[in-house]
Amino acid sequence: MWNRHVETFLGCDSEYAAADIVLLGAAFDATTSYRPGTRFASRVMRAESYGLETYSPYLDRDLSELAVFDAGDPELPFGEPAHALALLEEKIKTILADEKLPVMLGGEHLVTLAAVRAVTARYPDLHIIHLDAHADLRDDYLGAKLSHACVLRRCWDLLGDGRIFQFGIRSGDQSEFIWGAQHVWTHRFDLDGLQEKLEQLCGMPLYFTLDLDVLDPSVFPGTGTPEPGGISFQELLAGVHALRGHRIVGCDICELSPPYDPSGISTAAADKILRELLLTIG
Amino acid sequence: MWNRHVETFLGCDSEYAAADIVLLGAAFDATTSYRPGTRFASRVMRAESYGLETYSPYLDRDLSELAVFDAGDPELPFGEPAHALALLEEKIKTILADEKLPVMLGGEHLVTLAAVRAVTARYPDLHIIHLDAHADLRDDYLGAKLSHACVLRRCWDLLGDGRIFQFGIRSGDQSEFIWGAQHVWTHRFDLDGLQEKLEQLCGMPLYFTLDLDVLDPSVFPGTGTPEPGGISFQELLAGVHALRGHRIVGCDICELSPPYDPSGISTAAADKILRELLLTIG
Amino acid sequence: MWNRHVETFLGCDSEYAAADIVLLGAAFDATTSYRPGTRFASRVMRAESYGLETYSPYLDRDLSELAVFDAGDPELPFGEPAHALALLEEKIKTILADEKLPVMLGGEHLVTLAAVRAVTARYPDLHIIHLDAHADLRDDYLGAKLSHACVLRRCWDLLGDGRIFQFGIRSGDQSEFIWGAQHVWTHRFDLDGLQEKLEQLCGMPLYFTLDLDVLDPSVFPGTGTPEPGGISFQELLAGVHALRGHRIVGCDICELSPPYDPSGISTAAADKILRELLLTIG
Amino acid sequence: MWNRHVETFLGCDSEYAAADIVLLGAAFDATTSYRPGTRFASRVMRAESYGLETYSPYLDRDLSELAVFDAGDPELPFGEPAHALALLEEKIKTILADEKLPVMLGGEHLVTLAAVRAVTARYPDLHIIHLDAHADLRDDYLGAKLSHACVLRRCWDLLGDGRIFQFGIRSGDQSEFIWGAQHVWTHRFDLDGLQEKLEQLCGMPLYFTLDLDVLDPSVFPGTGTPEPGGISFQELLAGVHALRGHRIVGCDICELSPPYDPSGISTAAADKILRELLLTIG
Amino acid sequence: MWNRHVETFLGCDSEYAAADIVLLGAAFDATTSYRPGTRFASRVMRAESYGLETYSPYLDRDLSELAVFDAGDPELPFGEPAHALALLEEKIKTILADEKLPVMLGGEHLVTLAAVRAVTARYPDLHIIHLDAHADLRDDYLGAKLSHACVLRRCWDLLGDGRIFQFGIRSGDQSEFIWGAQHVWTHRFDLDGLQEKLEQLCGMPLYFTLDLDVLDPSVFPGTGTPEPGGISFQELLAGVHALRGHRIVGCDICELSPPYDPSGISTAAADKILRELLLTIG
Amino acid sequence: MWNRHVETFLGCDSEYAAADIVLLGAAFDATTSYRPGTRFASRVMRAESYGLETYSPYLDRDLSELAVFDAGDPELPFGEPAHALALLEEKIKTILADEKLPVMLGGEHLVTLAAVRAVTARYPDLHIIHLDAHADLRDDYLGAKLSHACVLRRCWDLLGDGRIFQFGIRSGDQSEFIWGAQHVWTHRFDLDGLQEKLEQLCGMPLYFTLDLDVLDPSVFPGTGTPEPGGISFQELLAGVHALRGHRIVGCDICELSPPYDPSGISTAAADKILRELLLTIG
Repeated sequence: MWNRHVETFLGCDSEYAAADIVLLGAAFDATTSYRPGTRFASRVMRAESYGLETYSPYLDRDLSELAVFDAGDPELPFGEPAHALALLEEKIKTILADEKLPVMLGGEHLVTLAAVRAVTARYPDLHIIHLDAHADLRDDYLGAKLSHACVLRRCWDLLGDGRIFQFGIRSGDQSEFIWGAQHVWTHRFDLDGLQEKLEQLCGMPLYFTLDLDVLDPSVFPGTGTPEPGGISFQELLAGVHALRGHRIVGCDICELSPPYDPSGISTAAADKILRELLLTIG
Repeated sequence: MWNRHVETFLGCDSEYAAADIVLLGAAFDATTSYRPGTRFASRVMRAESYGLETYSPYLDRDLSELAVFDAGDPELPFGEPAHALALLEEKIKTILADEKLPVMLGGEHLVTLAAVRAVTARYPDLHIIHLDAHADLRDDYLGAKLSHACVLRRCWDLLGDGRIFQFGIRSGDQSEFIWGAQHVWTHRFDLDGLQEKLEQLCGMPLYFTLDLDVLDPSVFPGTGTPEPGGISFQELLAGVHALRGHRIVGCDICELSPPYDPSGISTAAADKILRELLLTIG
Repeated sequence: MWNRHVETFLGCDSEYAAADIVLLGAAFDATTSYRPGTRFASRVMRAESYGLETYSPYLDRDLSELAVFDAGDPELPFGEPAHALALLEEKIKTILADEKLPVMLGGEHLVTLAAVRAVTARYPDLHIIHLDAHADLRDDYLGAKLSHACVLRRCWDLLGDGRIFQFGIRSGDQSEFIWGAQHVWTHRFDLDGLQEKLEQLCGMPLYFTLDLDVLDPSVFPGTGTPEPGGISFQELLAGVHALRGHRIVGCDICELSPPYDPSGISTAAADKILRELLLTIG
Repeated sequence: MWNRHVETFLGCDSEYAAADIVLLGAAFDATTSYRPGTRFASRVMRAESYGLETYSPYLDRDLSELAVFDAGDPELPFGEPAHALALLEEKIKTILADEKLPVMLGGEHLVTLAAVRAVTARYPDLHIIHLDAHADLRDDYLGAKLSHACVLRRCWDLLGDGRIFQFGIRSGDQSEFIWGAQHVWTHRFDLDGLQEKLEQLCGMPLYFTLDLDVLDPSVFPGTGTPEPGGISFQELLAGVHALRGHRIVGCDICELSPPYDPSGISTAAADKILRELLLTIG
Repeated sequence: MWNRHVETFLGCDSEYAAADIVLLGAAFDATTSYRPGTRFASRVMRAESYGLETYSPYLDRDLSELAVFDAGDPELPFGEPAHALALLEEKIKTILADEKLPVMLGGEHLVTLAAVRAVTARYPDLHIIHLDAHADLRDDYLGAKLSHACVLRRCWDLLGDGRIFQFGIRSGDQSEFIWGAQHVWTHRFDLDGLQEKLEQLCGMPLYFTLDLDVLDPSVFPGTGTPEPGGISFQELLAGVHALRGHRIVGCDICELSPPYDPSGISTAAADKILRELLLTIG
Repeated sequence: MWNRHVETFLGCDSEYAAADIVLLGAAFDATTSYRPGTRFASRVMRAESYGLETYSPYLDRDLSELAVFDAGDPELPFGEPAHALALLEEKIKTILADEKLPVMLGGEHLVTLAAVRAVTARYPDLHIIHLDAHADLRDDYLGAKLSHACVLRRCWDLLGDGRIFQFGIRSGDQSEFIWGAQHVWTHRFDLDGLQEKLEQLCGMPLYFTLDLDVLDPSVFPGTGTPEPGGISFQELLAGVHALRGHRIVGCDICELSPPYDPSGISTAAADKILRELLLTIG
């Protein structure tokens, strides 16, 4: 009758040992330059998942068919990004070492660097599928190398040319676009061509990083830097479903900032995308 | 110069005796399982209708051409759903007995059961057109038979197979979809085929129940259970206009929860849909 | 390294068997007549307790000195208040049978009835200390006997005259005040005399029920029925501390409605009062 | 069974002919210089009065003992303050001619001028009791003579020296305080001395104008220009009760701006003060 | 090291003398009939432009390539619309006399009249491109000729038939549509045909007035009168880009009301549209 | 007629060279552990100061009598607290070298360390007057030495025992209170004794650091860690006025987080306290 009060993401009630997938919250937003609040995302996503069904009529699958463990949110030192990333990297390395698939819930986009470091160590031929409104390719932001605005550039430092594939990009400074044209593959404004690109990469180990601000702000207002002119929920859903059958070795969902959306529709969108992502890769 | 202060829905200032249509508020949300607040919908819809015109450029008709009486909101006992439904059913039976068309403003979706009971008593060959994000076909919810999550199942108890036609459904548990496949007609995700279905049912007495969460949360954030991936306002508008010329014997608009939308766009959407519905069926 | 993600109220991480005090969430607000939302209180109180220290400089005690188990929130059927109360009553009876002190987190004030039923069964000479803005002494509300507006009247049905002591009352209909003058002891507007009353009851088994709307709405805006002219936080703190040394056999904190307070100060007040209450009775 | 849907302030359901008191909404805020929104005050005060009891435990009186007619809100042209004031003045003159007591619900404070014009025409020896955070004694605001910041100065134009008595004033420009020291009676920061002043004015016809921002912003955040350091609700309550037995010939309550208070406590305060004012003067 | 703190719209840091374009805030909303707040638009647009890049990936241009001076917001008397319009008109005449292009940031739509008066004086053969949800063609509103609901009618008073071209109109009273059919060119619901119309007007001096409520409320909830069923951000973007190469002699962006959008996505949309407009016409 | 658009705190429009006091925004909140948002404080304080008068009826002084320069907010790297502090320290050293009094507007409380470093370098016998709800005396927070929770401890590292005087403290962990009892002077819960302490320190160079959360959350809800049971606005006002005649060589106001207070009363309180502080020390 009495267990300690446990709050996990919807239906993710497996024990660690039995789990195939591990959810890890990365409640960190210390380098966010504009509007903070993504530190609350993982917690609110769990709480609000109560409003969602475990069953997907899109995929005709149910979360009860999967074994997912929700590891909660490790406490991270906000004033020390390098230290925080190291703590996350170590967690994800353990998950990988235990032959489980890590799914990280940001937090700001910088946390992706921790996961990519861990995953690259195991899969040196890693490729990144990156859905975002922003290119995130600056070399530094006000002198800082560890910043949400530089995260894909830092990933490039690890992986080099030809490994990063961006979709939906509609914002950046001019130098990012110029640099990006030479070093990463970028499709602007929408997800057209994602399926083809995935087929080209078939069999390759893929890291999937989803900055939810790729969605239009009407669908997803609760984010740090809303960028009008994004994609619809249905387009993103198709993009996530396109991962089916591919070799996803790590992934994350970032940049939900619940305080900026009193209606809660952004959290509902993030939760539903997470359910569909789990049912696609699980 | 001095009448008592009256606040009705925009332009619905007919006397009861002269009215062809009667608006009835069903300010009830006691079985709402997730986020409450639909109890305030009818009141806020009246107040905010001030921002709307009486004229529709879509239909080239004006509410001043209709005779609509706004009956306000009867007080309902929140802890006693069965009693509340009985009170609403009696009101609607009177409206029908007086040869007027009832248009109910929820409230949570459970109130539809009161109307369907009243309308079925008068039109035993009733068919239901149901627009919704959720199937609402559970047999019970935490043991309760009278729940917003079961309302179409309760209507099926009255009407049986082949009488309920659902559109836009994108959420439910697996068992609802399995049961529904055998007992009701369901079109998922959008309103495609609504016009054809209406033509097939031509001449039949129809009850039209609109759970506004069929709309995408970007258009309609103010609802209890926002479900991403819904239809656009223009799609819903076309769906409502498709009712023209059909034999609507009762209808309702449900699940607006104003407290969850500080911008007021959800109420604006509900009000405009109500205007178009009145101009379509009136 | 990996436990299932556990979210409890600040520092209440004892196992059940070892606990002296058990927190139980009563996430129920189905009879709330005005503004709902107390269903979210226990969950939000846990999440926001992160902003609070475990140490009280008022009492020079720390929550780490206590053994408190947080039992979470049992799921309750919203449309069936009698059934929901029975489920809660059973839980509290078990806690009492296991020689632990139950502390219930409402929810609407009606849930107090479940606790008082359980506690009275064990302590027939129970007395109630009731802090509230509202008398809650109606015999029914729109015909319903089980309503937040009737909860102390239902307790009186169990206990009879001379057992209920109200403080801070500043709202009610005229008949409640007339009836109350004959059957319960009421001090209006503030907590003056609470200490004396407790001394008179010294040694008696006491149930302490705190409707947080006894606080002034400036201090506690997030509640269903804000009633201006209430007491300050410091006055309530002194009232809670006055329980020290008395024989509290059960207690609850009710009527926090987080959605009505975007600033979160109401939850902060509820959390701090809960900490002080635990440190006083523990 | 069917009357047109009527929404009035709590319990103010008398017919005009039978009424002793007439409520009149002045939904106007066109000259508000800082944060607008008082145009919604009267409407929201009516709607939210549902959360209030008709009985006052402070006065042991009930609104059912009074005959109050709620005249609603006349539509006013926002871009034409002079015209709007003339429309209001005419309404109030009619109320006075019919031997009823006008109680106006602002709106911004400028509307007081309409009422004072009407009342002065009938009671040339009128005196004004003015509770406010702001002196409102400028001769013009950006060149405009009809402005909320000038309203008491415009009243002085009508009444001259020695007729205006201000309490609670804690803001103004230096020239207002210098001018005011010579022409009106001002008590700063609180209501001390109000009772004595009323006794000195005993028998005189009094207009009572209450700018609710005299309250501290913690109690009353929903106003156009929140001014920290104000009085408590209990102090204002005592101030209103002090009117008992005096010759109030007109009054108003102004400057509630509901959009700036999502918690609703400001409206609750305004409603309770209005109830107490009606029970004091009725 | 030390300049006075300057806050301008993103990248608009030219000196006046060197500027080709001048931004002028028109912080005025005194005739707004429904929900006010556009007075805050220009200030909030400047502050939130921090979240936007200066570079447009749509046009491959950067604001640093333009010379834009931000003139701030002149103080305007709210109770005196005629006077406020005269002050704005004078400012814009000076900008034009100095051979610079004025871009006005409303405020309510009435401020367009000030600009059109100034621009017409210089370009008598002016034509107006008008994007809006509302026709704004009433002859008066509650008797007032100077009202946001009449602004295009007042422009017509200056320009006469055949000079005003409206797109996106989806609301108005019946008489506006009847009158409009004879005097202005109106395309309902979307921007279809805008490009063709611009080509027909090639070489003509054009005033471009953008009421942002032409956007769907999902994209742009922060406005006074949200009108469901509007265009998407991408459609508006294409409409703005279509101005390229045409002879724009003045323009404005109106009707952003930040208080009604706590998420800030409306301001983000307005800012991005302003950036694209500047990069298109500059 | 045309200056670049300048937005400063109310009336602080002196040139740098002529100024006696310099306002400096410290828009930094990267180490905030709970609710972020103080990065927006200085900007919002400037914008909302429009609602305040320059004249103080408390002190009978006007800001026009002072020469204050508003230096705006230097851009700070969020992920690098040490670097950000160094940038602020350099700015404040320049202000001091130019014989001007620095008044810093936080931001989170950590920024105080930058100012204290600069001021201590010039005034080695500096003493600190610290008003706060929280002791801020931890040696580290999750391993970080530079954290808002450690700021007074870091100041103690510079100044040693007997130099720090805290008032209003009502929260901390047990070890902070134990450590603090030996190294700093702490008065809990209110400001009693502040005047006496100031008299004892008469003639000493004083740094005044005001964490606004010393106010009760009812008065000041918009802060990162609201702590119920604080002081009233009038008490804080008296505390600030008590500085008059003392030797203030630097000061700051911290921890306003505007996003958590949609009513704006917290910003109004901060602005009024800043006005009174300037008029007291200027």
